Amino acid sequence: MPDGRGRPPRYSRDELLEKVVTVFNERGYEATSMEDLARATGLNKSSFYHHFNGKEELLGLGVGRALDALAAVLAEPAACSGPPARRLEHVVRRTAEVLVAELPFVTLLLRVRGNTEVEREALGRRRDLDARVADMVRAAADAGDIRPDIDPRLATRLLFGMVNSITEWYRPDLRPTAGPAVVDAVVTLAMHGLSTRSAQ
Amino acid sequence: MPDGRGRPPRYSRDELLEKVVTVFNERGYEATSMEDLARATGLNKSSFYHHFNGKEELLGLGVGRALDALAAVLAEPAACSGPPARRLEHVVRRTAEVLVAELPFVTLLLRVRGNTEVEREALGRRRDLDARVADMVRAAADAGDIRPDIDPRLATRLLFGMVNSITEWYRPDLRPTAGPAVVDAVVTLAMHGLSTRSAQ
Repeated sequence: MPDGRGRPPRYSRDELLEKVVTVFNERGYEATSMEDLARATGLNKSSFYHHFNGKEELLGLGVGRALDALAAVLAEPAACSGPPARRLEHVVRRTAEVLVAELPFVTLLLRVRGNTEVEREALGRRRDLDARVADMVRAAADAGDIRPDIDPRLATRLLFGMVNSITEWYRPDLRPTAGPAVVDAVVTLAMHGLSTRSAQ
Repeated sequence: MPDGRGRPPRYSRDELLEKVVTVFNERGYEATSMEDLARATGLNKSSFYHHFNGKEELLGLGVGRALDALAAVLAEPAACSGPPARRLEHVVRRTAEVLVAELPFVTLLLRVRGNTEVEREALGRRRDLDARVADMVRAAADAGDIRPDIDPRLATRLLFGMVNSITEWYRPDLRPTAGPAVVDAVVTLAMHGLSTRSAQ
């Protein structure tokens, strides 16, 4: 929307949010000012406030987009019926796909430390999702399809430690077509590990 | 060393460094002032400067301790001879043990982003270590003991994504005896994955 002082870039709300989240990831949420955001998006502060109430709303929208996408995975039919190990494999694959597709948003989510109300709510939603996956690991172990010798919560943490590490090193700007290979590797390692010898 | 204004706590240099690194991890290195460090250690600034030249020296010592311990793993006899898959398994196990034993120091290392000369040197040393492990993965794949269908660098990243996640969730203050179970789970998942069915 023109503000009478030149022609500001016309971003959709989603495009604007992605730019904002990228700035949060680069500078850190705490260290980012509304001025930084206005500069990075080419909007002045009043145009900015036309779209959003403030920094914490932007944080909430950013982590909300990641959480909604991750929660949607757990609601997919293949995550809700069938043998537990199959459901788990589906969730691992789709979660990795969400990380690749929504990289800046999930990166922001994973850096949240609980300093604000919005962050604490996001951490709570993350914990709920983790607990539901841990239940799936437990059910798969009970069914005999997943090794029973690792505590399900520990297995879940290590599994998502691997999956979430994608946000640390995957650079779609450098290797835009690598996403599917990354996802396949995650699923294979999670389910079968590195070794070509069968599990003991 | 008493400073004439009361009796400051008598820490060894190592104990002092561990306290400092804990503050860096809690507040972030950039956001920590020498005053924060003096307060957290119960020393005044002049006593502090008696031990250390400044913040960047402390950062260098902290990440150096992590890097030295990780590099020492790669120099162990079991990492240097024998079948590559065995060497790799040894390195995964010992690296996880180093993370558990040197948790604050490795946590600091993993958060380094390259903003200072000390940080850039640390990132360089980390890259060297990663490259040596990737060579080990490649050798194990060539020997037929590690699945050949995942790029060795990608496998190394995912493997250490899982191992390094220990610093995100392992709380020795809450579960001081859980270390060995965490290490065993890391090795088992890395080599054999979750599934009880043999790899395809």
